[in-house]
Amino acid sequence: MQFKFHMPVKAYFGEGCISKNGSELAKYGRKAIIVTGGRSAKLSGALSDICAALEQLDIEYTIYDKVQNNPTLDNVREGGAMARQYGACFVVGIGGGSPLDAAKAVAVLAVNDIEPEQLFTNDFANRPLPVVAIPTTAGTGSEVTPYSILTRTDKQTKISFGTPDTFPAIAFLDPHYTESQPLEVTVNTAVDALSHSMEGYLGKRRTEATDILAREGIRLFGSCLGSLRIGNIGPETREALLYASMLGGMVITHTGTTIIHGLGYNYTYFSGIPHGKANGYLIAEYLRFNYEYAKDRIDDILALMGLADLDEMDAVLAELIGRAPAITGEEISRYAAITMTQRSTATNIRPVEAQDIEGILKRLQK
Amino acid sequence: MQFKFHMPVKAYFGEGCISKNGSELAKYGRKAIIVTGGRSAKLSGALSDICAALEQLDIEYTIYDKVQNNPTLDNVREGGAMARQYGACFVVGIGGGSPLDAAKAVAVLAVNDIEPEQLFTNDFANRPLPVVAIPTTAGTGSEVTPYSILTRTDKQTKISFGTPDTFPAIAFLDPHYTESQPLEVTVNTAVDALSHSMEGYLGKRRTEATDILAREGIRLFGSCLGSLRIGNIGPETREALLYASMLGGMVITHTGTTIIHGLGYNYTYFSGIPHGKANGYLIAEYLRFNYEYAKDRIDDILALMGLADLDEMDAVLAELIGRAPAITGEEISRYAAITMTQRSTATNIRPVEAQDIEGILKRLQK
Repeated sequence: MQFKFHMPVKAYFGEGCISKNGSELAKYGRKAIIVTGGRSAKLSGALSDICAALEQLDIEYTIYDKVQNNPTLDNVREGGAMARQYGACFVVGIGGGSPLDAAKAVAVLAVNDIEPEQLFTNDFANRPLPVVAIPTTAGTGSEVTPYSILTRTDKQTKISFGTPDTFPAIAFLDPHYTESQPLEVTVNTAVDALSHSMEGYLGKRRTEATDILAREGIRLFGSCLGSLRIGNIGPETREALLYASMLGGMVITHTGTTIIHGLGYNYTYFSGIPHGKANGYLIAEYLRFNYEYAKDRIDDILALMGLADLDEMDAVLAELIGRAPAITGEEISRYAAITMTQRSTATNIRPVEAQDIEGILKRLQK
Repeated sequence: MQFKFHMPVKAYFGEGCISKNGSELAKYGRKAIIVTGGRSAKLSGALSDICAALEQLDIEYTIYDKVQNNPTLDNVREGGAMARQYGACFVVGIGGGSPLDAAKAVAVLAVNDIEPEQLFTNDFANRPLPVVAIPTTAGTGSEVTPYSILTRTDKQTKISFGTPDTFPAIAFLDPHYTESQPLEVTVNTAVDALSHSMEGYLGKRRTEATDILAREGIRLFGSCLGSLRIGNIGPETREALLYASMLGGMVITHTGTTIIHGLGYNYTYFSGIPHGKANGYLIAEYLRFNYEYAKDRIDDILALMGLADLDEMDAVLAELIGRAPAITGEEISRYAAITMTQRSTATNIRPVEAQDIEGILKRLQK
């Protein structure tokens, strides 16, 4: 048994967690920048809750609300410049994965005069500003990971950076904030969380410590499957999904992801398909591809989710998120080539060649 | 669901973890004080491993090796003064719970000119020195908790302090270091770890997040029961016990302990009985006392340990650690009165009065 466990985020989970624990923010300084995509931060109530907490503590703040879905380097450059100009002492990220990941990049760029491309060196002269992460979706887990995943137009994919200094200082996980999301977003992001726990449970970097978190994350997704299928997402389901998402984040903090993520980014980059949905297209074929290399663990996953076999997994996911759109032979080759450049591909339990990725994609062309 | 999860310790687990990750120490400064009880640090090999790592990094160090079992305030005063005089930048604690807990107190006293009594205010002007924790027993879990438990002769018991700043910065958990412990210490400390997970699983402060850690800690103890009973502790058992101990520490960091600990301190204070053994005397009666208040969870514990019922739990623990020594009626009253002053008593799932504690102690007088 050999592992490292490091999870320094102070996570507050539960309804009203900001109003109950907002006083914690006092120690981070007198000026904050809120980084968000705009819409969900307002609709969810998270923005007004955090503003109330900041005002109560007499902390000044400004808002950068232009984070795009799958933020680009130009996007975080703009946010970083605004944070620096404003003299922010800490960054509050509110939203799904995109604003939370952007907040981490803004926290680095606010105090390091570097080009956004240099984020990926993970080598920063000055320690990033503290980040307060407030998820409004249950899927990314970004609130408990050090990772920031940004779109690289030069490389036609999404690439992450992250160091022990880019863990959020605090995460406020209030299931109530996920209520305003449309059903489709709830389902897609839940599948993303499932994929985090699943890839961590099956990946080469799994440890005894991540196994127990991953199993619980998968079990919780399974316990929500009935509600997700009929589209009836009550408070208990929202709570379970947000907790499962946090667990998935704790898992991939230690294990990283594998080929589902590396391959899924192609669907997002080239076809604009939401991240969780793209992952979901790939799960059943990913499990089939790895089955002989991790039979017992894949059987565990099926049992934890209450599914009979991989065909049922396939059918359930297709019911939840549909099937991958057809792509051309040229696209299959391109997706495979780009996937092979992702670091995460090397952590897949079964060794992966470009032709294996092509094979997975071909089998999806039903 | 409402919880806080905060576990900032960077834990490295596995054989050779110091030599593999010792370079991490460079960031804590140029001078270290090693705090230890002397004997187990040397016998275990931990002292020579950490000295080699420090020397390789050109970090100067001095050694305070006078930590007593169940360290007193005078003991940590002396260590703190030595650390201050030496100008230590960080503290390395090596040993069982006593040296690790003393190291945390030394880290506070080195930079705060206060009387040791003031440790219990948890209010320190200066941030404690970073602590590197290296357990040589598998039981305390102190390497991943912020708690330091010290003997208060004025109050005739042991009392803890701890703040988010007294978490160790790093823990090195090498199962090899526990090899040199006598069987009795291995058994006693293993029972302590069991009691941490058990009290956390049943206490009022339990959360969804601690439940999964506690269940795994209890299950692991159960998986080692056969080896513990026959006294054959091989490498896999040592590994499982050290990991179970770490999980127990992560649990009580969030949940605190309950009446087993508060009551057990009496046996240690007045009769010098080792901490884990004192806890073990109480476990079966504690479970009987709480059974109607936590039936399902106590049944879970029995199932996780592979035991049929509480009578079997009682018999197994008696076989491992023996029975509590007979005490007088006066002692029963005194133990109960002191236990009622412990904060942890209030977190027991079943409300506790002094007469309940007396009842538990009377039932032990078999």
